[in-house]
Amino acid sequence: MSDYNIAVLAGDGIGPEVMVEAKKVLAAVSKKFDISFQLNDFDVGGLAIDNHGKALPAATLKGCEDSSAILFGSIGGPKWDSLPLEERPERAALLALREHFDLFSNLRPAKIYPGLEAFSPLRADISASGFDVLVVRELTSGIYFGQPKGLEGEGEEQFAYDTMRYSKREIRRIAISAFNAAQKRGKKVTSVDKANVLVCSRLWREVVEEVAKDYPEVELEHIYIDNATMQLIRNPSQFDVMLCSNLFGDIISDECAMITGSMGLLPSASINQDNFGMYEPAGGSAPDIAGKGIANPIAQILSASMLLRFSLNETAAADAIDAAVVKTLGDSILTGDLLGPDERHLAKSTSEVGDYIAALI
Amino acid sequence: MSDYNIAVLAGDGIGPEVMVEAKKVLAAVSKKFDISFQLNDFDVGGLAIDNHGKALPAATLKGCEDSSAILFGSIGGPKWDSLPLEERPERAALLALREHFDLFSNLRPAKIYPGLEAFSPLRADISASGFDVLVVRELTSGIYFGQPKGLEGEGEEQFAYDTMRYSKREIRRIAISAFNAAQKRGKKVTSVDKANVLVCSRLWREVVEEVAKDYPEVELEHIYIDNATMQLIRNPSQFDVMLCSNLFGDIISDECAMITGSMGLLPSASINQDNFGMYEPAGGSAPDIAGKGIANPIAQILSASMLLRFSLNETAAADAIDAAVVKTLGDSILTGDLLGPDERHLAKSTSEVGDYIAALI
Ligand SMILES: CC(C)[C@H](C(=O)O)[C@@H](O)C(=O)O
Ligand SMILES: CC(C)[C@H](C(=O)O)[C@@H](O)C(=O)O
Repeated sequence: MSDYNIAVLAGDGIGPEVMVEAKKVLAAVSKKFDISFQLNDFDVGGLAIDNHGKALPAATLKGCEDSSAILFGSIGGPKWDSLPLEERPERAALLALREHFDLFSNLRPAKIYPGLEAFSPLRADISASGFDVLVVRELTSGIYFGQPKGLEGEGEEQFAYDTMRYSKREIRRIAISAFNAAQKRGKKVTSVDKANVLVCSRLWREVVEEVAKDYPEVELEHIYIDNATMQLIRNPSQFDVMLCSNLFGDIISDECAMITGSMGLLPSASINQDNFGMYEPAGGSAPDIAGKGIANPIAQILSASMLLRFSLNETAAADAIDAAVVKTLGDSILTGDLLGPDERHLAKSTSEVGDYIAALI
Repeated sequence: MSDYNIAVLAGDGIGPEVMVEAKKVLAAVSKKFDISFQLNDFDVGGLAIDNHGKALPAATLKGCEDSSAILFGSIGGPKWDSLPLEERPERAALLALREHFDLFSNLRPAKIYPGLEAFSPLRADISASGFDVLVVRELTSGIYFGQPKGLEGEGEEQFAYDTMRYSKREIRRIAISAFNAAQKRGKKVTSVDKANVLVCSRLWREVVEEVAKDYPEVELEHIYIDNATMQLIRNPSQFDVMLCSNLFGDIISDECAMITGSMGLLPSASINQDNFGMYEPAGGSAPDIAGKGIANPIAQILSASMLLRFSLNETAAADAIDAAVVKTLGDSILTGDLLGPDERHLAKSTSEVGDYIAALI
């Protein structure tokens, strides 16, 4: 029997309540597939600031280091927005964890589930043609982490600067992630860049084309970031895997999430070279609905499934969760975010949805 | 009687044929409003590469310097895509002109005209709520022009870098453009940044807030670029003026253009401190439909209207063109891009639309 340590960082807002449901589902697969999990809770984000004075306390980081993977909830909220940027949950915890564990490969799947087309903000004939994209975003380099960054000069000539920076090695490893993923999906990679303006994008294109040679069965296309934001709205079904740098992936993955219209269903994975990873819902901490028991737990549950699949290689257990989620949606066991205004009275609570999924496993 | 020199740079693809129509309309306002234009044609883009070996020949630049404004068509096409980046039409002509004339203020209006809602790729209930945005994009700084930019190192550690850079002065002048524009429109500025990651965005926010103090009647909101791409799809009617840096404005303005679904109607202006400007359609050179007489000339005609309004201060003439365009659309005098598949037989040609607009003036 396999035995895993998982660091559970529920965080702020709806994080804790959806995490309860993910734990239920992990308990169910534990029984069914004879996998044992040690789930160790640690404070992170605003909660950790309140309890320990910083968003990523040493004990939390140590707990993550001693685990096979991190199951992350969500962090941040108005309460901590006035802190200096460097201390805020997003930078002090989220970006810090990405950097510390070299989680360079960020996988953000976004698809429209059958029956939920009407939630897409796209025109009915466009959403009907289908949407199932995996955004593969480089997560530990580019303009987020490039040095130098700073502020210089005086008066009106004072200027700020940030450095976008990519090495061949950094581009190659994320490109390989994208091609590997495409090979298991629609066999198409669309690489997003701004090669008509950025030197980084030119090197990006060069390395991506080198990597593509090792994947003759995968089609490669290049698209400029400005055109990508247009094509995603006009004809989103043309895309399979979208390979992006850190900044462009931030933008494209959010646009893809919104195109599905069902952000409460979208998980994400951030993985390093050793398949250690951090798994979290694509949506935010949603402080406005926190504590009401109405948040959709599925993104958190599917994040647990990605954890099983990518960090633990427990494919059968991950497949079981994914199938249970599809069945739950098909059975119309839905939280309010997935119901039209006239059907809100049919809404199930966070825990009812979690119970249903766990029971199916 | 006013007398103006206008440099006309029709360029490639559909540029020349839509420019013919803009000239017709300028001839009509010349008569009606007693304004005299010297329209001087110069080669630019691929055409100039073919005729003179470079995308922006000295004679063209001189011609622009001797004019009150530039009316620009569109440039580029597959024929010149294999040239080294520095020689290609986009960089060697478009970015060069922006830089040479310090055209820092790029105005890109995007709206859904009444009756054309069905062309928006957004869901009917969303496009019905209306969309009328002015993107104000900084055009001569940021990561497009920031130094240093380059390639260093060897082997897998070879790296590329680009510098995003903004001074207070540069931010202030574009923010003032945005607030001035908002004051004449919906009185709301949404400033787009990534202040949770970029030092440039933090300075951006600081200066924008300073400028806002001089416009107490204009509401200011800040939004992260990733969230902006989402909100534009979910609830686009919340925006009035969107104030963006160079790179973010490139992305946001294209997304806005696509949301209208009628790119053939969208003009743009790129203006400097002295109101000298370059005016061009938002769409590209569309080589696939060039020479067929089916391209929509309205974006080019409205670019001429913006030229009259912003560089020549000929407001009555500009108003007359805008009104004639609205009437033409209302009268269903439309090129094929604005007709559904069943109505294509009703399509008017490029010159029929131009004639109709000119006749109305
Ligand atoms: C919170 C923020 C720093 C972060 C990012 O930009 O990476 C978020 O938008 C994301 O996409 O995970
Ligand atoms: C052609 C390209 C360099 C240009 C830009 O990125 O500015 C274009 O996309 C635009 O928006 O005018």
